[in-house]
Amino acid sequence: MAERIQLFDTTLRDGTQGEGISFSADDKIRIAQRLDAFGIDYIEGGWPGSNPKDVEFFERVREAPLQHARLSAFGSTRRAGIAAEDDANLQAIVASGAGAASIFGKSWDFHVTNALGTTLEENLAMIRDSVRFLKGRGLEVIYLGEHFFDGYKRNEEYARRTILAAVEAGADVVVLCDTNGGSMPEEIYDIVGAVCRLVPTTVGIHAHNDCGLGVANTLAAVRAGARHVQGTVNGFGERNGNADLVQIIPNLQLKLGYQCVSPEQLRTLTDLSRFVSEMANQAPDPKHPFVGKSTFAHKGGIHVSAVLKHPETYEHIDPALVGNERRVLVSELSGGSNVIYKAKAYGIDLDKNSPALREVLAAVKALEHQGYYFEAAEASFELLLQKAVGRYRPYFELEGLRLLIEKDTMDGEPTADAVIKVRVGDEVIHTAASGNGPVNALDNALRKALLDAYPELAQIHLTDYKVRVLDEDAATGAKVRVLIQTAGGGRSWGTVGVSTNIIEASWLALVDSVEYGLMALGVAPMAGQAAAPAAGRSTAAGAGA
Amino acid sequence: MAERIQLFDTTLRDGTQGEGISFSADDKIRIAQRLDAFGIDYIEGGWPGSNPKDVEFFERVREAPLQHARLSAFGSTRRAGIAAEDDANLQAIVASGAGAASIFGKSWDFHVTNALGTTLEENLAMIRDSVRFLKGRGLEVIYLGEHFFDGYKRNEEYARRTILAAVEAGADVVVLCDTNGGSMPEEIYDIVGAVCRLVPTTVGIHAHNDCGLGVANTLAAVRAGARHVQGTVNGFGERNGNADLVQIIPNLQLKLGYQCVSPEQLRTLTDLSRFVSEMANQAPDPKHPFVGKSTFAHKGGIHVSAVLKHPETYEHIDPALVGNERRVLVSELSGGSNVIYKAKAYGIDLDKNSPALREVLAAVKALEHQGYYFEAAEASFELLLQKAVGRYRPYFELEGLRLLIEKDTMDGEPTADAVIKVRVGDEVIHTAASGNGPVNALDNALRKALLDAYPELAQIHLTDYKVRVLDEDAATGAKVRVLIQTAGGGRSWGTVGVSTNIIEASWLALVDSVEYGLMALGVAPMAGQAAAPAAGRSTAAGAGA
Repeated sequence: MAERIQLFDTTLRDGTQGEGISFSADDKIRIAQRLDAFGIDYIEGGWPGSNPKDVEFFERVREAPLQHARLSAFGSTRRAGIAAEDDANLQAIVASGAGAASIFGKSWDFHVTNALGTTLEENLAMIRDSVRFLKGRGLEVIYLGEHFFDGYKRNEEYARRTILAAVEAGADVVVLCDTNGGSMPEEIYDIVGAVCRLVPTTVGIHAHNDCGLGVANTLAAVRAGARHVQGTVNGFGERNGNADLVQIIPNLQLKLGYQCVSPEQLRTLTDLSRFVSEMANQAPDPKHPFVGKSTFAHKGGIHVSAVLKHPETYEHIDPALVGNERRVLVSELSGGSNVIYKAKAYGIDLDKNSPALREVLAAVKALEHQGYYFEAAEASFELLLQKAVGRYRPYFELEGLRLLIEKDTMDGEPTADAVIKVRVGDEVIHTAASGNGPVNALDNALRKALLDAYPELAQIHLTDYKVRVLDEDAATGAKVRVLIQTAGGGRSWGTVGVSTNIIEASWLALVDSVEYGLMALGVAPMAGQAAAPAAGRSTAAGAGA
Repeated sequence: MAERIQLFDTTLRDGTQGEGISFSADDKIRIAQRLDAFGIDYIEGGWPGSNPKDVEFFERVREAPLQHARLSAFGSTRRAGIAAEDDANLQAIVASGAGAASIFGKSWDFHVTNALGTTLEENLAMIRDSVRFLKGRGLEVIYLGEHFFDGYKRNEEYARRTILAAVEAGADVVVLCDTNGGSMPEEIYDIVGAVCRLVPTTVGIHAHNDCGLGVANTLAAVRAGARHVQGTVNGFGERNGNADLVQIIPNLQLKLGYQCVSPEQLRTLTDLSRFVSEMANQAPDPKHPFVGKSTFAHKGGIHVSAVLKHPETYEHIDPALVGNERRVLVSELSGGSNVIYKAKAYGIDLDKNSPALREVLAAVKALEHQGYYFEAAEASFELLLQKAVGRYRPYFELEGLRLLIEKDTMDGEPTADAVIKVRVGDEVIHTAASGNGPVNALDNALRKALLDAYPELAQIHLTDYKVRVLDEDAATGAKVRVLIQTAGGGRSWGTVGVSTNIIEASWLALVDSVEYGLMALGVAPMAGQAAAPAAGRSTAAGAGA
């Protein structure tokens, strides 16, 4: 039986210290749910004592509790010279309702006397009192020794005493932090080993990547006896980031034989990494070990034929184990089996040699080259398939659209109005609506126009709207990709549109959203509605306008 | 005296196997000269036997020889069953005129019999003959054992014999390659140690980054006795890339006490890294250890006040040692010291207890809660500071704005027009412009309206436009954040706007972009332009509309 390693994720706390990383309370909830499903043991939600957004997060998680993971609230040991009971920061941790508290204290004598400005003995009392206070309130306590390795190298005796103080007071885990990220793997190995011999408690590691060794230092700590590992998804975090769980977990599980998550959960690693990048609005790194797009990419020639015959000759693991895939950079056939597989899921039988398959492949290739991203918009992809096999029937035709945005002064609130004319069956509907922005006005007007003919639309509502600028260097003349998520009838589906005009991109995704929703609800197009001409309105034809 | 480590760069050969990396012969010459100046010992220029671009490169280097580095030509051992003299690939290495040859041979018995299709003995003869042939032609020979670690783990005896064959034939260096990048640091340490005990020759390491351990594996090899290190600048290379010399060199020299380059050369490391990124047309990674833009960036309030007092508390090295610099970021996590530090950089003296400081801090906190993000928009932050200390003077006033988007049919291309009325000084300008989207139309109209009064605007152009939907669950009613990057007069600056209306968010960022640009160019607002009232148009007041 493989030994278990506790996984502690701090994407939502230390990860948000990273430059360019900022999550809404909503984003944080969605990420926490994903981490929970992935099998993370502890999710550090934030620092309730330091900012209101984190307080809101803890409140909202209580409404929809996690299945597997335990939530941890971050904070510091009590302030010098006051009782733990009177410390607002510790009170906020208790008030957060989290099952665990992760609190940091000073390990480095220089920091105690200089940064904190108190005595070495008072610092030990602060650690003891704070751990004891939180344990007394029923929390699991994870004690973080800040700057532990730097402190240990300078005053080993004092660093040891800080850990003993936490352990004596009942800490469940003591985590050694390489806060500045400047330690070498062999130092980490030696010092973690020494602490494991010192205390019977579970020892953890919290590494940073300043020397490019965040992953290596974490693995060295586990080799030395650490059984609790802290890090962030994608290595988000201050400066060069925290140790990257996305790299640590497969190394621990596939290379070193430890048990972290189930094999099924590990197969969602690539999805998890991309999801968190998307939430952070960061382009995924193609060279990201294990999960990057280039990670299992092979260039043409002998190399490729070798890898297809004997994958182990040029691949250190099977990409499927982490949910990634092999790419052969010069092959055009690689997508064929994918499309057949997907079509089957939609109830469409596509032959390997059918013209429809070739048409879909060519369209997907051309559209993705323009910036479409069907992975996140399977409904648009299914509509594309329906069109290719001649099954698609439109629900309406656009006859005219006007959007007007007005703003009168520097401080004035802008207004947005949409005027729309559509033909449904034999009827022409001409109507208008406002919104708090142009896309919202457009959405409102389209629904208003179609609701009489298709009352089922009332069951469908948009749940997510994302915009990504594709060629950012073209500035305001750039192409944008809009992704819309829609829910209704107990289902949820994604659609996509791309254009230099954000209104057009939104319109394309919106039309797919409505049409797919009506189709999924089993609604038939109005009698008299023209069948789609072969070269009619299609995602393909409308793209990149 | 510190022990010397030989640096072998393969950016121009293995680095070009990376997805998206391609250098012209010209680029390669410029990179080689930079590497030479930096103090690299060996520069692998390419594979003269495999492509004409590489032949041209070797010819051109001969015209302008390197000062310090020795050029190495790459190739394989001779083909099976022929004499080394008759091998076109080995002949091409000699013809290249390079002073060193780096040739690879098979170490893994499975590869010999399966990929190569020859006998184990013939493979040993191929290694011996090829090394001997190149030594006989006066070249320094660096022998690369491909898949050495994988081979050693499966058939240790045979892997050792391949190395002994190269050494007996006179190889100057034997390099052990972790070709698939799947080995762990402790395996590297053990196997490199065993080879160092086996042969008296200099042993080298060639690692890849598939497990995120390229740097750690290289350092482990050096600890075990390797004295020759191969890698690429920025870790360019196939799949997840080669071991990154930009991280390896400072670790070896600053952390482990080895001698690689002079301290002056090390101070150009950041420049070298950015230069090579520029040549490869790759955006530099802000989180790149040692040299990234975020590497010495501090965000948390406690961190910042500590790092300004005692840099060693939160910085593992002095950034100047690698030519990088400290940065202080402004965000909702900031305390007063961040703002004071920034204000000083803008020439504004803020007292720790001044009302202006409190006002700015409160505004930043409130705005970031709404979704503003000043870290990426320092120009908007500087304008906020100017407003707080009463220095801000507006360049124009908006009197009216109309945006019209029209689309006539499902397939029709939409049009976008903006009508704008602004007051500049005593004059009212009323004009209009189109664009390929509404924001582009707005940008065009604003520039058109202001250009007569401020001809300097012609020097300013937008370089980047980003949109982020903040509360995605609100779907098309969601708040969006727009970030604009602008360049002009040799500078570049970022601005931000937030609103539920994407046009309004873009407008706010656009106005800051223009006003900051004019201010930075030293342009005075037109006479008659009203001074800003205390509660006038401000980023703060305009937010979240």
